[in-house]
Amino acid sequence: MLTDAVRDLLDLPQTFTHLCTLLPGGAPQATVIWHRREGDTLRIVTGASALKVRNIQRDPRVSVTVAHPENAYHFVQLRGRAELLLDGPASLAEMRLIARRYIGERADAWVDAMGAWDAAIITVHPERVSLFAEQEPA
Amino acid sequence: MLTDAVRDLLDLPQTFTHLCTLLPGGAPQATVIWHRREGDTLRIVTGASALKVRNIQRDPRVSVTVAHPENAYHFVQLRGRAELLLDGPASLAEMRLIARRYIGERADAWVDAMGAWDAAIITVHPERVSLFAEQEPA
Repeated sequence: MLTDAVRDLLDLPQTFTHLCTLLPGGAPQATVIWHRREGDTLRIVTGASALKVRNIQRDPRVSVTVAHPENAYHFVQLRGRAELLLDGPASLAEMRLIARRYIGERADAWVDAMGAWDAAIITVHPERVSLFAEQEPA
Repeated sequence: MLTDAVRDLLDLPQTFTHLCTLLPGGAPQATVIWHRREGDTLRIVTGASALKVRNIQRDPRVSVTVAHPENAYHFVQLRGRAELLLDGPASLAEMRLIARRYIGERADAWVDAMGAWDAAIITVHPERVSLFAEQEPA
């Protein structure tokens, strides 16, 4: 489902997810967070009681935008459904993999220093993907 | 309503809006686009028949995230309502101001080259603002 061009963008170091979930009542609520692509999904780890987790528990519909860190005209839109895994140890293991994308070899020590963390894995399953591979207007 | 720190971030050249609107049925839909702050609002210009315009016509609730172009840990979340102005000439005048933020002195020639454009101004009125002024984990 994700083309090579989309995978390349999502895999680029220092690309961040702008994740939009739905509040009670249906209003959109967005935040900026780390991600890691796994196959055709995006994985995000956050606190189990985070607003975005509570939103997804109520309504799994999400939207994601990820822009190239050096060219915001090159970005991908993903719409789909988020799946939650409320499992502290699994979340920390995933967090090690995610953190490596952003802070490299410091990731393990950084995750170790967090200790036990009541965290959750959000897996975004894209249902619609649009890639914009543009440049600043000439 | 917008603090000086939030204004400074929104006014920074090369900051882009990740704008999330609501599709028919209520699913979130996000895109990446230019903006310009005007007082306590954000202005965006797009085609009058764009998906985000049709979404806002149906439901004005929007969410915006804007990250610092060199430090994505420094970002602002804005939630609020979008107001539409479907006025081609006014949209082109606003587009000149917006484009100047991104392409500088090339903006006027770029807008002139667009000719008549059936465009709309989206004005985001924030109702809730959260600033995250963080750094990459040490």
